[in-house]
This record gives sequence, structure tokens and C-alpha cells, in this order.
Amino acid sequence: MAIARAVRSPYGNRSIRTYSRDGALVQEKRAEIVRSACHVFITKGYDGTSMRDLAKFLGKSTGAFYHYIGAKKDILYLILDFTVTNQEEFVNRMRDSIRDMTAAEAIKEAVRIYLESFEEHADMHVFVNHVMVKLGRNDRQMMLGAAQRVSDFFEELLQKGMQDGEFRESDTRMLAQNIVVLGNSWVNRRWYWKKYFTLDQYTKGQTEILLNAITAVAHA
Amino acid sequence: MAIARAVRSPYGNRSIRTYSRDGALVQEKRAEIVRSACHVFITKGYDGTSMRDLAKFLGKSTGAFYHYIGAKKDILYLILDFTVTNQEEFVNRMRDSIRDMTAAEAIKEAVRIYLESFEEHADMHVFVNHVMVKLGRNDRQMMLGAAQRVSDFFEELLQKGMQDGEFRESDTRMLAQNIVVLGNSWVNRRWYWKKYFTLDQYTKGQTEILLNAITAVAHA
Repeated sequence: MAIARAVRSPYGNRSIRTYSRDGALVQEKRAEIVRSACHVFITKGYDGTSMRDLAKFLGKSTGAFYHYIGAKKDILYLILDFTVTNQEEFVNRMRDSIRDMTAAEAIKEAVRIYLESFEEHADMHVFVNHVMVKLGRNDRQMMLGAAQRVSDFFEELLQKGMQDGEFRESDTRMLAQNIVVLGNSWVNRRWYWKKYFTLDQYTKGQTEILLNAITAVAHA
Repeated sequence: MAIARAVRSPYGNRSIRTYSRDGALVQEKRAEIVRSACHVFITKGYDGTSMRDLAKFLGKSTGAFYHYIGAKKDILYLILDFTVTNQEEFVNRMRDSIRDMTAAEAIKEAVRIYLESFEEHADMHVFVNHVMVKLGRNDRQMMLGAAQRVSDFFEELLQKGMQDGEFRESDTRMLAQNIVVLGNSWVNRRWYWKKYFTLDQYTKGQTEILLNAITAVAHA
């Protein structure tokens, strides 16, 4: 007999109902559901999408769908969780790997990895941008906190470069947020960027513009 | 007796039904409807918003509402028209007013006016960003064309500065699109920017970063 269980989402304090006992399978199926759901949500809108629409898009029965997810709202929570976890992991991973680099090298490497993660989860980032305005206070705070930690990470890098004399005096808060915007812009305006630039060209070009703006100089 | 009339929208080839004979009043009422509608659309989603929701938000009866607008779809067309017209006017106005400026002065002035227009119609720009993915081919092409003309205008300014030796060799297409992104970022991420910057501070700071990136220099 199927027993309803709750598998905790990786972040936050919500439990989401499943009828499966296989934790790894639940994670895998949910990741697949989340990926497709974001695609459907950004075209039909979150409110305009039914569980039936999602099941149909995935080529599954609604029953098979409810095996892993309790309700549409659960998918939204999974997406928020995933985004937050993703940003945490990015910062932790980067802090380790850039330890011995100059500030300019560290910025280059961090921007590259950051933009790659936007490319990998493009639909998710677009959807999260859209849904931000609908979130309740707690969810919104959680999302803003995660975004702030990424921004803080880039700001530290910029400040280190300024202290080392590698970068000129600049508004590091604004520059750090501009780096965050580079990722969002890549996915939100992909209809434009992808006409003219590959991700690699975008990364190299934007990094060059950024370093031109901040590298210590004597004007000609 | 009320007679259904069609008042042409300012751009494109659509007619929108009205029962009013007063063309100026129709324009005014529609502008008011569009402004409120964008606010409701970005919180409830376009699909999730009914004409009744919109009338309620405006404190009007549904009947009063239908006096000026034939259907929800008409509001979407008015919004698209308004955005396109707005961008056309921006470019025409700027071409005139910057004629005698240096490239750096022209960029400063154009960015300032551009960002002001985003501030003034913030909800509309946010909504247009969201709805882009749902548009049919023709509407989408119209929107992309208008955005491209703004981008082209900034690119010309950047190229002029390069030819005059005022700016260094740069990817002008990427830089021009980054300026367009400055406006979108201001409204899409206002929950972040407005915590730390006024529009005036944002404009000055971003212009300084941009000019630092493109001004011809000898490295220290």
C-alpha cells in the first residue's frame, strides 16, 4: 500500500508529500519536474498552469506526477530551494578555488562560473525573476538573502582588488550588483544576446568591459 | 444611443472598440487604464487577471471600463503600442538634443533621459519583459525592432566617440546593449537598487562606470 511520506526540501523548513520510499529517486524525479515546470510557467504563467498541463508537458499521467509532488505550490518551493542552494554552493565553491588568485584573475574566474550556472538553469532564473513579486514575505526574504550573499561575495573581491592597488576607487556595491545583473541579463534577454554572442563571447566581452572600468589607470 | 466606434491605436494597425465619441478623453482614459493594468498584471499575471479585477482595482464598474476598451487583449496592444512609441520618441528627441555635444556628454545626457523614462513607466517595462515570451511573431518582431533602434542609437554614439579618439576600441554592440540593460535592471531589480541608490545616484554611478570602461587611457 502506498504511504504518504514527507521528504524535506534541501533548504527551508517545508516538507513535501511523496508516495515513494526511494529518496534518491524522489530527488531525481523532482529535479526533472522542476526543470520542465519552469519552462511551462514562463510561457503560460504560474497561475495559468495546471498540474494537468505540467503532467502533459512531461508526457506523464497526472497520477504519476502526484507520486512525487503534493501540489503545484510544492514545485514553486522546490524551485526557490534549488535557486537558494545553487547560490550558496556557488559562493562556497568560489571562495575555495580563488584563494591564491589576484583580484582580477578571481573576478574573471568567478564571473565565468557564475554565468555558466545561469546558462545551465536559464528557465529557472527567468521564472524566479517573474515570480519574485508574488512571493510572501518569508520566501521573498529568503530569496533576497541568497542574492545578497552572491552580491557580497563579488563586492569582497572588488574591495580586495582596491586594497591591493590593482583596482581604482569605485562604487563596489554598484559594480557587484552589475555582475549579478550580467547573469540575469544573459537569461532574460537571451532573445537578444544569443543573436550575436555565444556564452563564451559574452563572458569574455563583459569581463573585459568590467576590468576596463575598474583597473587602476592613468588617463591619457 | 451609444455607437461602437474604433479608435486606432497610435502604432501598428489595430483598431480598438470604444463607445465614446471624444477622442482625447478616450486617449486619457486608456492611458489611466494601461498604467493600472500593468500594476495588476505583474502581481496577478496577465492570464490570471480578469476585466473585473482591473475594473475593481481602478474603482470603476466593469461597464464603465468597457466604455473605453473592447477586451483585455486590447490593453495588451495599448501597452505594446505605448512602449514602442515611447522608444521611437526617445531616439528622435535625443538625436536632436545631443547634436553639438562630445560623445561623452551625449552618452551622459542620453543615459539620464533613458533611465528617467524607465522610472516613469516602471510597471510597464516590467510587464513587457514578462510578457515578451507569450507574444505572437508579429508583435514580438515589432517589440524587438523598437528595442533594436534604441540599442542602435547608443551604438552610434559609442562609435562616434571611438572615431573621435575620445573612447578606446571596444565592443560597441555589447556596450550599447549594456546601456539598454541599465534601464531594465533599474526597474526589474528595483527591490535591490532602491534600498541603496536614488535614481540620481544610480544614473551618476552607472555613467561613471561606463565612462571609466570606455574612455581612452594609458594604463598605469
